[in-house]
Amino acid sequence: MNNFTFHVPTDIRFGKGQIECLPKELEKYGKNVLLVYGGGSIKKTGLYDKLIALLADYNIVELPGIEPNPKIDSIRKGTQLCKKHNIDVILAVGGGSCIDASKHIACAAYYVGDAWELVLDRSKMTRALPIAVVLTICATGSEMNSGAVISNEETHEKLEINGDILYPAISICDPEYLYTLPKGQTAAGTVDIISHVFEQYFQPNDEAYLTDRMAESVLKTCFHYGLTALEEPENYEARSNLMWASTIGLNHLLTAGKGGAWSVHPIEHVLSAYYDITHGVGLAILTPAWMRYVLCDRTVDRFAMYAKNVWEINDEDKYKAAALGIEKTEIFFEKLGMPKTLSEVGIDDTKLKEMAGEAVRTSGIAERAYYHLNTEDVLAILEAVK
Amino acid sequence: MNNFTFHVPTDIRFGKGQIECLPKELEKYGKNVLLVYGGGSIKKTGLYDKLIALLADYNIVELPGIEPNPKIDSIRKGTQLCKKHNIDVILAVGGGSCIDASKHIACAAYYVGDAWELVLDRSKMTRALPIAVVLTICATGSEMNSGAVISNEETHEKLEINGDILYPAISICDPEYLYTLPKGQTAAGTVDIISHVFEQYFQPNDEAYLTDRMAESVLKTCFHYGLTALEEPENYEARSNLMWASTIGLNHLLTAGKGGAWSVHPIEHVLSAYYDITHGVGLAILTPAWMRYVLCDRTVDRFAMYAKNVWEINDEDKYKAAALGIEKTEIFFEKLGMPKTLSEVGIDDTKLKEMAGEAVRTSGIAERAYYHLNTEDVLAILEAVK
Repeated sequence: MNNFTFHVPTDIRFGKGQIECLPKELEKYGKNVLLVYGGGSIKKTGLYDKLIALLADYNIVELPGIEPNPKIDSIRKGTQLCKKHNIDVILAVGGGSCIDASKHIACAAYYVGDAWELVLDRSKMTRALPIAVVLTICATGSEMNSGAVISNEETHEKLEINGDILYPAISICDPEYLYTLPKGQTAAGTVDIISHVFEQYFQPNDEAYLTDRMAESVLKTCFHYGLTALEEPENYEARSNLMWASTIGLNHLLTAGKGGAWSVHPIEHVLSAYYDITHGVGLAILTPAWMRYVLCDRTVDRFAMYAKNVWEINDEDKYKAAALGIEKTEIFFEKLGMPKTLSEVGIDDTKLKEMAGEAVRTSGIAERAYYHLNTEDVLAILEAVK
Repeated sequence: MNNFTFHVPTDIRFGKGQIECLPKELEKYGKNVLLVYGGGSIKKTGLYDKLIALLADYNIVELPGIEPNPKIDSIRKGTQLCKKHNIDVILAVGGGSCIDASKHIACAAYYVGDAWELVLDRSKMTRALPIAVVLTICATGSEMNSGAVISNEETHEKLEINGDILYPAISICDPEYLYTLPKGQTAAGTVDIISHVFEQYFQPNDEAYLTDRMAESVLKTCFHYGLTALEEPENYEARSNLMWASTIGLNHLLTAGKGGAWSVHPIEHVLSAYYDITHGVGLAILTPAWMRYVLCDRTVDRFAMYAKNVWEINDEDKYKAAALGIEKTEIFFEKLGMPKTLSEVGIDDTKLKEMAGEAVRTSGIAERAYYHLNTEDVLAILEAVK
């Protein structure tokens, strides 16, 4: 088992009505709040009005319009607002995009140069405003981790910033806020959770037994409730388990004793940087293809273990078991309504090679992934799903 | 799924050599350290010398001799030392007893009255010294939670204090420190971890699916490695998984979405308050008897689920599956070398009724346990293992 540190200071308030604690909690930081949100669904659902009423004593500056795959221009806008209005605390209301944007703004608010420089050189990130979260999409786990992914349209880059100062101080996770989520977002969110677990689970550390069992627990939860959440949007049991799964899926627990670079996310990040597709959709297309590509004598035991422990596939032929586990995964994504090819999401084959090169250039997949992937490997995976 | 809060600020440093960070970490708090340890095993293993060398720049005041089931007199002694020497930080080196004693001392150091008053009235606990831990026994999970259990020999009470101010600031968890642990302590520690999980798992909340699967993950880890740790004391894989299992087993993760009073611990606490037996040993004697006593139409599904998911027992007859799961548990404790009766640990039947009454009086088992237990119920369980 690899050495590790687990130190996650975020205060999670999980369940119905937890939002009521917000006025008291924000008071610790000050009265000037930057309210960060997305396309306005929170106005339709009444959450916006609820927040404005709850925070009547606060000075609220708004940064609406955070896009999926949040862009550096939104960060720049938010950073200016923080500086201009002496913001004390950022309140992110939404999913991973809003939280990630808020994290980046939180540290850019203390930086004199351009915000993109912080992405390119983390050592410039020294301090951050406190962040509070009201989670309305469960997918990225950003509510309880220290990472954020930001896109730069000019350079076609989608890169991560990460640092201990970026943990949200408090995250309100009320599963009822998921009831109004469009089906596509529910489905893509579930794929994202599953993919996070895969990225941590498919690593060459067989001695992290407990961590592997916990990873399988999160996977089983997604497979158990994923379709229910689509078919019965107001099923609290399904929504609450998926919401907690998204948090556990990426709050460092599932990497305890393990390690290595991620495989599918870096490839997907390039796809969505070039074509702005939904992150979870890209992951659903790529994951089964990646699994089949990396299946070999060195990896088959772990794929067979996945098949056995998550899907109860007990075939004695390891390769057969592994293939069945991959097939089950693919069928699950299909049932969620996910596309299976790049062409279905408007990606033709003109830039596959360029994107494959970018995926290798901007990540550790060629040197530190479970199965090392060079440009030819990534291209082969992309070709398999074009 | 019940509402819950998860907010555990302890910084876990897990793995080989992590102790090296201690000088830098303690510096945050100050130079005056109260070093709390037990019977002196840390002197035999060289850990004491290592610490003294590492902390050469610190003023170290020692509180040795913390006993298993730590006594209020040790707390009083430690509290006086803190006040006299202006202690800045407490360094607990040991297992649950040392950590629990340190937690109690940490808050008593800021209290003007007698330390036992804090146990009887938690509202008097307002502030605490920071605590650092070097873990040498894995069992109680105290290294990452906010509880402490203290015994009062005069009143035959073994009671808990609990509060957010009692989380250790940092815990060094190096599995190599477990290599020299006596077999009995390794075994009793594993039983303690298992019992913590049972107390949280056997609760009437069937919707906390993910939490149940994670609880089963910890149980599987204990059953998978428990005997290996006994037979191969220097098996790093076994030691590291059990050490992390002890932390995960009682750091609030396994109670997320669940709830209710514990059942077996309150009974065992009375046994060890009266007879000073090893906590894990008492739990091993009581647990199978408790399981059989509470098995009924209302609880059988969960016991059968435990049998299926942890022991792979797929019997269609729920009662048969449940009984087999309980038997497997009992056999595992036996293999660990645990006694099966109270008489084997020197407890005769003269005080069974009195202790049954105490268990009910000092806990919520009559009103809020998985299966409500009144004095007659507890007595019946004790009679079954006398």
